[in-house]
Amino acid sequence: MHKLVLMRHGESQWNLENRFTGWTDVDLTDTGREQARQAGELLKREGYEFDLAFSSVLKRAIRTLWIALDAMDAMHTPIGLNWRLNERHYGALQGLNKAETAAKFGEEQVLVWRRAYAIAPDPLDHDDPRHPRFDKRYAKVAPENLPATECLKDTVERVVPFWNDSIAPALRAGRRVLIAAHGNSLRALIKHLDSISDNDIVGVNIPTGQPLVYELDDDLKPLRHYYLGNADEIQAAMAAVAAQGKAKG
Amino acid sequence: MHKLVLMRHGESQWNLENRFTGWTDVDLTDTGREQARQAGELLKREGYEFDLAFSSVLKRAIRTLWIALDAMDAMHTPIGLNWRLNERHYGALQGLNKAETAAKFGEEQVLVWRRAYAIAPDPLDHDDPRHPRFDKRYAKVAPENLPATECLKDTVERVVPFWNDSIAPALRAGRRVLIAAHGNSLRALIKHLDSISDNDIVGVNIPTGQPLVYELDDDLKPLRHYYLGNADEIQAAMAAVAAQGKAKG
Repeated sequence: MHKLVLMRHGESQWNLENRFTGWTDVDLTDTGREQARQAGELLKREGYEFDLAFSSVLKRAIRTLWIALDAMDAMHTPIGLNWRLNERHYGALQGLNKAETAAKFGEEQVLVWRRAYAIAPDPLDHDDPRHPRFDKRYAKVAPENLPATECLKDTVERVVPFWNDSIAPALRAGRRVLIAAHGNSLRALIKHLDSISDNDIVGVNIPTGQPLVYELDDDLKPLRHYYLGNADEIQAAMAAVAAQGKAKG
Repeated sequence: MHKLVLMRHGESQWNLENRFTGWTDVDLTDTGREQARQAGELLKREGYEFDLAFSSVLKRAIRTLWIALDAMDAMHTPIGLNWRLNERHYGALQGLNKAETAAKFGEEQVLVWRRAYAIAPDPLDHDDPRHPRFDKRYAKVAPENLPATECLKDTVERVVPFWNDSIAPALRAGRRVLIAAHGNSLRALIKHLDSISDNDIVGVNIPTGQPLVYELDDDLKPLRHYYLGNADEIQAAMAAVAAQGKAKG
């Protein structure tokens, strides 16, 4: 039996400001750092140890992982960084406030952009300085693989190869793996692992900073999954994620 | 021309307490964290960028690297961790105060233990709980490679293979490399790079937290090397390292 732990990064500055973040490299808030520390302490208390960790190349996920590993007294854990674990690219929505966007375009449209499986927001312009082709950390990624916007389907299609090529082989080799990533890249991974339908994935929300444990059989098929930690807090955190697209007042 | 930057970790708790540390996994002091931050800011100000970083598996080096990369806004830099960059193993001296040891055994004996090229202190007992074979992070290291004590010659012999197998190929592939490590593992590396004699390496002291730049030709032979930062501070830091083995008062 293989154990895999998924961790969505703690609260970021733009989670707090309720803005679409995507590939924008915003940092954690103090609350987000504290969530990461608590997640690490929880993992340590529950006896978890890891041979290998993975993260996206965005600092809110990397910092979550660093803080959690530090709290576990396991800073020596090797970390594999890959852009394929990045958050869904939110295209031209990146930077916009979710509630203001809902007030302007309607909650229904925002829900489509946030959750429709195959509908992406407008892309960033090719010459927009925020386009990932201008960011040196993506210099070795083939240009045709670099997104200027994504729907969840696109995210699934670039997350799954990293699962197949890097994460699954590590698990098969008996390594205990921790992944720090993002709401939508983790939803993409879970959709693949649990064979969740395009329709049903819309209703899946992952709370920030709560370690999510997957127990997998020898074929890496999930046997069961569960959150570590307090059930009430996890429910409240999931509801908060689901409510982000509502217009305020 | 290849550029390689070496960084000795900032002040650790046992640097502060003037104790032999070796493979003991002590953390940085607040001063050490500040040194790491300043080193990162200096590297950023001087325009340095790295494609790859290496560190030992000891947290004082890893934290130095994390803090410096954070200050450079380059947390996404891949990090390769390897025990071969660990500090020299100080055997049975680990944990003892350097000044007390000098008062007890004489400054000359301490200078021999600290600096003689081929004389190691007594080893840790095979059943000593501090023996690295009991530390899970070394579980995959061949038992015959795990030291219970080392002289600098031993350290050179386990650092050089990592240079040959990992660091040198990365440099030859055009990657810009940063290494965070320890006083003696960096002395071992420098001895190899600059072909310093067994006698002359005794007088080489590396200050904490000061980025040391090596410019290398296509065959990775050093063209020149220099510290970044303020020359007076660097001289003072080197003198402080050299003075650690003296009995107090």
